Amino acid sequence: MYPQALESLIEELKKMPGIGRKSAERIAFYILEMPSADVLKLSSSIQRVKKELFHCRICNNLSDSELCSICRKPSRKRTTICVVENPRDIEAIEKSGVYEGLYYVLWGAISPLQGIAPEDLKIGTLISYLRSGKIKEIIIATNFTPEGESTAFFLRKKIADLKLNIKLTRLSQGIPTGSSLEYLDEATIGRAIELRR
Amino acid sequence: MYPQALESLIEELKKMPGIGRKSAERIAFYILEMPSADVLKLSSSIQRVKKELFHCRICNNLSDSELCSICRKPSRKRTTICVVENPRDIEAIEKSGVYEGLYYVLWGAISPLQGIAPEDLKIGTLISYLRSGKIKEIIIATNFTPEGESTAFFLRKKIADLKLNIKLTRLSQGIPTGSSLEYLDEATIGRAIELRR
Repeated sequence: MYPQALESLIEELKKMPGIGRKSAERIAFYILEMPSADVLKLSSSIQRVKKELFHCRICNNLSDSELCSICRKPSRKRTTICVVENPRDIEAIEKSGVYEGLYYVLWGAISPLQGIAPEDLKIGTLISYLRSGKIKEIIIATNFTPEGESTAFFLRKKIADLKLNIKLTRLSQGIPTGSSLEYLDEATIGRAIELRR
Repeated sequence: MYPQALESLIEELKKMPGIGRKSAERIAFYILEMPSADVLKLSSSIQRVKKELFHCRICNNLSDSELCSICRKPSRKRTTICVVENPRDIEAIEKSGVYEGLYYVLWGAISPLQGIAPEDLKIGTLISYLRSGKIKEIIIATNFTPEGESTAFFLRKKIADLKLNIKLTRLSQGIPTGSSLEYLDEATIGRAIELRR
């Protein structure tokens, strides 16, 4: 048994996604051997993300101010919205350099297994956004996983019910079924945006 | 590009052993979604290990007081020392439940590639420990890697030079318990044949 302070750090680290007991031990020992200044930097970085980051008032993206860096940018086309599951997907799409519109982050996908129902998605502001009449196209870019597909299906129906004159597209089927956007290369993502139908 | 606070946390996490960019992102997002109280607990655990843990005065093991939990225990045999590379090795040996003596932690192994020379190992107190005349056996339990083997070789020579009446042993090498020959590497099998008894 390690000293209690070390054990409790290992326990905390083990909760992280993809970190088992052995990795947690390795990381804890690494932290132990880090210079004190770096340890302080790490622990304050952890607190900072929690304190300084909010959801963008328009699109729910992560942001350190009221509007996220994309909604703030005057060069973005304000008539197209790309709906994604989480900000990591935005990062992946931005890397492709093909998309110039705005985004909308759902912060998840419908998943009966994880107990995420349609009501749990943050779509309220999306609907009023669409009703504003400024939006010409909405691209549904949820993942091509069962959860992402259910979410896309649900959104498509929800938006159709609004009976607005909005073009509704989905990323083209160039994306391999069953894979998550964040792990794909930018060329595949870029192509899928160009071929959207 | 993520907001700056998130980017810098990802950068910090990427420095950890075994954590690449993608894992760092996943962990950062996990932290973002943790309740604030848990985030505070994590960041203070990180600071605590650095502040509250020392090296045991006798054996260099990690400890939250002057002597580690093993050196403090009256039931341990004080005539045998097992020399290991780091406290994780102590943990592994303790789990076997077979060893009753004390330990000595080198905090590393000789590694020309990583620039760790024999002088960098913490062996000063080990030598004076051995000279005290109380030790009857020393077990060298450095890893069976090139670094661990060089360290064992170096220690064996160093201790022999002291010309003390101390039994010097090394952990036995061979086939791991519970393993099948067909999945083992040829070096392990070859060694097990050479050292058969």
